[in-house]
Amino acid sequence: MAASPHVPFFDPESPVFRAHEGGKLGVHATQPLRGRDDLALLYTPGVAEVSLAIAADPSLSARYTARGNTVAVISDGTAVLGLGDIGPLGAMPVMEGKAVLFKHFAGIDAVPIVMESGTVDELVEAIARIAPSFGGINLEDISAPRCFDIEDQLKERLDIPVFHDDQHGTAIVVLAGLLNGVRVLGRSLPDLRVVVSGAGAAGVAVTRLLQRAGVRDVVVCDSRGIISASRADLTGHKARLATSTNPRCLQGPLGVALEGADVFVGVSGGSVPEEEVAAMAPRAMVFALANPTPEVHPDVARRHAAIVATGRSDFPNQINNVLAFPGIFRGALDAGARRITPAMKLAAARAIAELAEDDLSADYIVPSPLDPRVAPAVSAAVAAAVAAE
Amino acid sequence: MAASPHVPFFDPESPVFRAHEGGKLGVHATQPLRGRDDLALLYTPGVAEVSLAIAADPSLSARYTARGNTVAVISDGTAVLGLGDIGPLGAMPVMEGKAVLFKHFAGIDAVPIVMESGTVDELVEAIARIAPSFGGINLEDISAPRCFDIEDQLKERLDIPVFHDDQHGTAIVVLAGLLNGVRVLGRSLPDLRVVVSGAGAAGVAVTRLLQRAGVRDVVVCDSRGIISASRADLTGHKARLATSTNPRCLQGPLGVALEGADVFVGVSGGSVPEEEVAAMAPRAMVFALANPTPEVHPDVARRHAAIVATGRSDFPNQINNVLAFPGIFRGALDAGARRITPAMKLAAARAIAELAEDDLSADYIVPSPLDPRVAPAVSAAVAAAVAAE
Repeated sequence: MAASPHVPFFDPESPVFRAHEGGKLGVHATQPLRGRDDLALLYTPGVAEVSLAIAADPSLSARYTARGNTVAVISDGTAVLGLGDIGPLGAMPVMEGKAVLFKHFAGIDAVPIVMESGTVDELVEAIARIAPSFGGINLEDISAPRCFDIEDQLKERLDIPVFHDDQHGTAIVVLAGLLNGVRVLGRSLPDLRVVVSGAGAAGVAVTRLLQRAGVRDVVVCDSRGIISASRADLTGHKARLATSTNPRCLQGPLGVALEGADVFVGVSGGSVPEEEVAAMAPRAMVFALANPTPEVHPDVARRHAAIVATGRSDFPNQINNVLAFPGIFRGALDAGARRITPAMKLAAARAIAELAEDDLSADYIVPSPLDPRVAPAVSAAVAAAVAAE
Repeated sequence: MAASPHVPFFDPESPVFRAHEGGKLGVHATQPLRGRDDLALLYTPGVAEVSLAIAADPSLSARYTARGNTVAVISDGTAVLGLGDIGPLGAMPVMEGKAVLFKHFAGIDAVPIVMESGTVDELVEAIARIAPSFGGINLEDISAPRCFDIEDQLKERLDIPVFHDDQHGTAIVVLAGLLNGVRVLGRSLPDLRVVVSGAGAAGVAVTRLLQRAGVRDVVVCDSRGIISASRADLTGHKARLATSTNPRCLQGPLGVALEGADVFVGVSGGSVPEEEVAAMAPRAMVFALANPTPEVHPDVARRHAAIVATGRSDFPNQINNVLAFPGIFRGALDAGARRITPAMKLAAARAIAELAEDDLSADYIVPSPLDPRVAPAVSAAVAAAVAAE
């Protein structure tokens, strides 16, 4: 394969390709198969008793099959990382990686499922049909705006947790960071002016969760500028954003929104000039989450903002979904939750934030993505939120 | 839960339920995740290189994801064991058991997928959509006649092996037994009169494979008797059987077919009276495969027949699909086969039969289901058949 701007040189001897040889996941039996007696227990004729018991009482399924600890990581490969629509086969290494993280942090058996893309109805139909195989569904890297309807329709149809991580995982970790950011700066959420750049999966979910947490003034921008009721080009979820955000009825480009803003959340992949960051309010917070190239370089942002977070591991305050999704699903499965509610997301964000409290500073508003305390704490908080509902 | 004829008493302390606690399968990472460096290799940013390489050259998928060693075990729970339509949740313990066998005998990572049932089109559509996740598809316990069209349509649409085990696994092992049966008895396939009782998934596939192997005279019976061109009630696959079997144009009940027959293959779940077995040709072979209750008790059959096989482990000559499916898929995956052809099935049957040759007798026409030599031998034979095509 030749090198190209979009296809890095394929080098089977490189560390990345070596680490991926044969894939990153395996399936194993959890019970010994030593001979005829084990076979008769685990397969016919013994298994018939378990099958009949579950058929008579489906609630036994979670206890007597792996389903109770299994989450499907499902993608159609249309919005993979920053790579775009690379198809189901291309998406598989990412889904396997996600499954590795589910296991590592939360002991969850995650099964990557990559699908041929299609209409919302086609994807919903296929996912709903295989849903009995799983205890939960993590949607991943499905392009907006289809991802909103797909998630909404699956939540409606299924009685297991469905969670689009690109939306809600990002939103939860941004909120966690913001909760600690206001602690560091002595501010409070209702007083903040927040600008969200990007009206795709992450932008919409961040906006909704911040509002749910108490933020009153959120302005969302897409590639054409501020989303406002005066724009004639808005439909669907953007039209809904226009009525539920932007209380000061701003109009114009992103720069207008940023003037005097306290918080910038970039989930767009675009770029923000330094002078627009400089025009934010004093002691601002910048979450420049585009990966691998943040909307504004963190060193530049830090000249003007009090707190800077990115999606990258080589700068402070990495906003990484892995802080959320393992514990969210662990808690939901443990509590037997049938859906992931806003209360569970808020509980997860608070639990993540609390783990950073002891060492809180402008450069430490969220725990490390590898902090092993996080998933158990999130799981416990989520399960408690389920119990409280 | 109360005991009932169809729902055995649910006793969580019984060995079967204890062995099923938490299910029988787990997912594990095959690469270590020791810290930030591993995370950067297995997940972002490293994984992007692998995803892009696969998107550019899909053939790399089998090498750099687990897909190359993964088979989906898919059922809608409509024809589970002898239990009938017990639904997807009830089917799951059986599918997990099957996955355990795939791993144990062939090192294959099998993923159980249970689906809400539906029309042929609905099931085909859903399975085809998730097919990019897998290196092969083992269909299981899907009711006839839908199973025929589902398999045919999936074979048409997909470029990975699709194999309905209830059909072809059974057919392969029956043929293996028959090949050794004729050796023991000094007969040959073209001279045999064979009666197949049951025109469902297994009956149809057994008939076709025996014909492919050289049997000329096969008579198939359903619950109404011999399938013949004179019957007005036949449609679909039974109408096709009527024209491709029954060369002597027999009519009437099963007993008519059995008079003077050399081989009985029961895959019906019905029962055969002793006098009908007695009316078979001298030195007949009886494959009474209904489970757990054979069509005729093997001790009774043995009074009249020279060779008796059942589906049970507590009698000689157990016809068990596990002799076939692990090696079939291992060989197909190893050879990069895009489908399971008749030549591959014949090669598998011959390989199974050969392993019993050294100790061949009327009570040993197939190897033990637990014989570890079987899957490697079947795999090698199947891969060689692929290479020869």
